[in-house]
Amino acid sequence: MLPAVVLLSGGLDSATAAAVARNQGFSLYAISFDYGQRHKQELSAAGRVAAALGVKRHVTVPIDLTLFGHSALTAAIAVPKGRSDDAMSHGIPVTYVPARNTVFLSLALAFAETVEAADIFLGVNALDYSGYPDCRPEYIAAYERLANLATKAGVEGTLRFQIHAPLIELSKAQIIQRGTELGVDYSLTHSCYDPTPAGLSCGQCDSCLLRRRGFAEAGLTDPLEYSA
Amino acid sequence: MLPAVVLLSGGLDSATAAAVARNQGFSLYAISFDYGQRHKQELSAAGRVAAALGVKRHVTVPIDLTLFGHSALTAAIAVPKGRSDDAMSHGIPVTYVPARNTVFLSLALAFAETVEAADIFLGVNALDYSGYPDCRPEYIAAYERLANLATKAGVEGTLRFQIHAPLIELSKAQIIQRGTELGVDYSLTHSCYDPTPAGLSCGQCDSCLLRRRGFAEAGLTDPLEYSA
Repeated sequence: MLPAVVLLSGGLDSATAAAVARNQGFSLYAISFDYGQRHKQELSAAGRVAAALGVKRHVTVPIDLTLFGHSALTAAIAVPKGRSDDAMSHGIPVTYVPARNTVFLSLALAFAETVEAADIFLGVNALDYSGYPDCRPEYIAAYERLANLATKAGVEGTLRFQIHAPLIELSKAQIIQRGTELGVDYSLTHSCYDPTPAGLSCGQCDSCLLRRRGFAEAGLTDPLEYSA
Repeated sequence: MLPAVVLLSGGLDSATAAAVARNQGFSLYAISFDYGQRHKQELSAAGRVAAALGVKRHVTVPIDLTLFGHSALTAAIAVPKGRSDDAMSHGIPVTYVPARNTVFLSLALAFAETVEAADIFLGVNALDYSGYPDCRPEYIAAYERLANLATKAGVEGTLRFQIHAPLIELSKAQIIQRGTELGVDYSLTHSCYDPTPAGLSCGQCDSCLLRRRGFAEAGLTDPLEYSA
């Protein structure tokens, strides 16, 4: 079995992307990031998902992005609640974290080079979040090109890095259907940007709204409990 | 004065690159990395250099690259000593840290986006270290392209990111000459990969050898003391 590095946030998308990688026959090396996110409890979810998928190794990298702030996820900026579809589909939301996926992919690339994995999987998705610049196909293609110029293994040709974004063209409902076929247990995952102090999902942030609608459209029941 | 982010390791090259940026009229935002490097004392040097250059803000980001190991700078692998020119100019040395400059540039990009700096300076140099893949012009160009696809500011066009590598085509002697013209105080810098417990530069690692030869070729005196 060839090794693959999977970025695992603990959310629904990355759990599904990891299941896709496992289904393709890869042995999984998971990487998560303790970056000062408001919804740090997603890291416990990442641990549960990693265990359920039988990953070979799971590394959680502390990298304090609150040093830079500027996002509702890493600074004292309110997470928007109850936004309309129209609002969600226009512009880059305040939950954008500067260069976040670039930082995460760079650390995933370092991990991949050391475990000799040519394949890196991440659960980015362009349809629901057209707002995030670092979730678009042209970004992923540019990163793949960079990865092969940036590394000893890429330059020497011992690894040909590929960045896989298997969900990039799927709707949330399609992602949930795909994951369900692959046996993903979504009760292990966490999506909410702004959970209550008791750890309940708020139900009203963009991430909760998209998740709930995805389950509804897929005709499936979301196993999570919501506070509102 | 426009802001620029400068990657400041505490070494000779980055101090010179920062001086070039200041000379071009930028207001400097310095970023350094506490990544588990064997030669952690370079961080004190970075602080001294930042102070001497009058930077507006200096951030040191802890990012533990020893999690991945695989380098003489971040794992229990001996730093090569007394290598010949021929050995130094062939192949990628064991001091290569997987994806290091990509990780560093990504964090610099996050910093740049938040302080609204379109310009990022780093002291990479292709001539002396042809061995490091992430010090080559094609890598820098690919990173610049990525930066503009990766970020809100790049996509919205409020910033057009440029990665400046003003030393990339210079020899070590030329770098030292340029820095000396710009008033860089090289006694503040630290280059050695493997300093003695007392903090003296070893004089024999690649970095020391290249530095010493650079000063000799420039006809200048290296203000550092060496143990051998």
